[in-house]
Amino acid sequence: MQQNRETEKQTGSAKETGKKIRAYLDNSSTTQPCREAVEAAVRSMEDNWGNPSSLHTLGFLAEQEMRKSRETVAKALFCRPEEIVFTSGGTEADNIAVFGAAYGRIRRGKHIVTTAIEHPAVLNAMKQLEKEGFSVTYLMPDSFGWIAPEQVFDAVTSETILVSMMAVNNEVGSILPLEAAAQAIREKKAPALFHVDAVQAFGKIPLRPADMGVDLMTVSGHKIHGPKGIGALYIRRGVHLASRVFGGGQEQNIRPGTEPMPAISAFAAAVGALPDLKKEEERIRGLNKLLRERLQAIPQVKIHSLEKGIPYIVNFSAGTVRAETMLHFLAERGVFVSTGSACAKGKESHVLSAMGLPKEEIASSLRVSFSRMNGEEDVDAFACALEEGLSVLARKGLKRV
Amino acid sequence: MQQNRETEKQTGSAKETGKKIRAYLDNSSTTQPCREAVEAAVRSMEDNWGNPSSLHTLGFLAEQEMRKSRETVAKALFCRPEEIVFTSGGTEADNIAVFGAAYGRIRRGKHIVTTAIEHPAVLNAMKQLEKEGFSVTYLMPDSFGWIAPEQVFDAVTSETILVSMMAVNNEVGSILPLEAAAQAIREKKAPALFHVDAVQAFGKIPLRPADMGVDLMTVSGHKIHGPKGIGALYIRRGVHLASRVFGGGQEQNIRPGTEPMPAISAFAAAVGALPDLKKEEERIRGLNKLLRERLQAIPQVKIHSLEKGIPYIVNFSAGTVRAETMLHFLAERGVFVSTGSACAKGKESHVLSAMGLPKEEIASSLRVSFSRMNGEEDVDAFACALEEGLSVLARKGLKRV
Repeated sequence: MQQNRETEKQTGSAKETGKKIRAYLDNSSTTQPCREAVEAAVRSMEDNWGNPSSLHTLGFLAEQEMRKSRETVAKALFCRPEEIVFTSGGTEADNIAVFGAAYGRIRRGKHIVTTAIEHPAVLNAMKQLEKEGFSVTYLMPDSFGWIAPEQVFDAVTSETILVSMMAVNNEVGSILPLEAAAQAIREKKAPALFHVDAVQAFGKIPLRPADMGVDLMTVSGHKIHGPKGIGALYIRRGVHLASRVFGGGQEQNIRPGTEPMPAISAFAAAVGALPDLKKEEERIRGLNKLLRERLQAIPQVKIHSLEKGIPYIVNFSAGTVRAETMLHFLAERGVFVSTGSACAKGKESHVLSAMGLPKEEIASSLRVSFSRMNGEEDVDAFACALEEGLSVLARKGLKRV
Repeated sequence: MQQNRETEKQTGSAKETGKKIRAYLDNSSTTQPCREAVEAAVRSMEDNWGNPSSLHTLGFLAEQEMRKSRETVAKALFCRPEEIVFTSGGTEADNIAVFGAAYGRIRRGKHIVTTAIEHPAVLNAMKQLEKEGFSVTYLMPDSFGWIAPEQVFDAVTSETILVSMMAVNNEVGSILPLEAAAQAIREKKAPALFHVDAVQAFGKIPLRPADMGVDLMTVSGHKIHGPKGIGALYIRRGVHLASRVFGGGQEQNIRPGTEPMPAISAFAAAVGALPDLKKEEERIRGLNKLLRERLQAIPQVKIHSLEKGIPYIVNFSAGTVRAETMLHFLAERGVFVSTGSACAKGKESHVLSAMGLPKEEIASSLRVSFSRMNGEEDVDAFACALEEGLSVLARKGLKRV
């Protein structure tokens, strides 16, 4: 791993960025495509560019590549290849799952359980379903972004047709009680499908949807050093979804459209290049510990992420300096983190709001997110730049939220 | 062009295909990504891999690249950049347009006009809308795949809320009477949006949606030597669509989800590399003429595509040899064509059926489709192989449909 990391250290072209990337710590927003992914995409575009639906040799070769890619992704989820449907990313997979499950089961009930800290791809789909007559229960997290198993268990009723819950929260790294949802569905004999948005968990913690009682699971390529624009939905064998996308029948007619072969090949290559998840988690836990030590030494910092969460994400409030101000200060020094999620694009975080944090704390919150391409030097570069920022920005009189 | 074509002659790696591509004439199924597209995708993955929604420098650089790409695509459609929404391909663009228009205008009527020869991405969306209570008029083509302007004009009523019609048919190359639709909407004061699936026209004939009275136009990357998995929807300024995809707000919240930057950059590069459309059409018309001469010399061939259609597509019935049999015979010789569209994957063509062709003629129909990477030698290679096939397959006693 270390070697991999050294040779693959995340970079930006000097020409493009005008400065070197010293520490890229925004991996929950997106990651740099790994060498394997880039090479697979190029191979697909240069050597194997047929349409998998074509009946001739070139189509067959592309289809073969697609089959191999599907097997690779399936293997990572310990499922059958035919249970994997490629999508254009996490958002499309979430939409297909949520709408497909809700309308696929509408005759058996209209109640849905989710959480207030889901990704907008789930949350906004839920808001739409409410407009269309469904009843949605949003579970609220505690002040650290955690949801108790009992909350989930209590929320599920015999009329619940869908439970959609992320595996790991993208902003604070809390781990959600998936077992409680599966247990509730089972014990209460709810006619519910169980969907898990695992975008932030995939490639970080082992996921076995079949063993977890999960019917539908969303994963994405660009959070694991694959390219942007590709994801997959695990659909447990036998699970029926109402159609959401209509077209030429590709991907079992669940996600028709000519298959995005360069992205599919690159995604599979990134999955194939994943390290041993347990070993890597341990290494990242080391970085997490180091970061926490550095942060705890700064009086004005308050850490929002609990240690029992995944070590890849650390969310904290940077004293009284506005997060965006600090983010730009850090970026100037080649250190990249985020305020909440990239998708929110500067809007107040709905996750931190749901956690009940004071407005000024939300406004100064930063997220550090690790990947296998990070090392101790990144933590050090970040911590030094942060300390400098807190001192400089305070001195400059920018000490406001 | 000639030079471009020589250096960029469509290829398949010998390793992958086991044989050389002598003539790739299946460009309406998919095209080989051009050098410019491949290079742009690699640049995006290696040098400019930030998330365009990130607030820091890397996000800004990616957003800049996205803006440039959008401008390139907009320029090709003579429209404003903000009228272009990137999608995962033609199918998603068609779905967003058709569902978005139908539900966006549901209060003003439930009548929709389309044709029986649309791509499944429109046709199957229409079938779904019928199930949901909309009333759809499917215009039938004549025996050459053409639809008369009067048919379109007569079909539009004052309660029509959507007209969806392709610019060019993908199987036979007929050109549809878009002006008649625009005129009917205008003169009958129909509350209709006008959607055009221009996947097979874009990059082949000049398209100016604003001047054509078109509100929504679908284009795709992989039919013009861009990668598979990217497309765009032109949405005329001021046109409101009901939301179809729900997520983090990207692409004006019409197509949310982290933007597929490698594909977007590559698509724009392919658009930028398009030749002068009129000159190129003339050159292709030369190939078309040559092909027709060769086909007309074969007694058992019947050409379905009219000369007044676009020259890029020639559909014909290859005597009494089953199309799939012939297709494999040709592929063995490095010559690639298709039976109908790739999306149909061997199912009987709904286009040729709508044209009222006899079953045996449909079963022996092949489609030759050109791109800027083809030359006279491809027509020759194809014609020779076809002649050989007709003689060999007949001799072998496979002369059945």
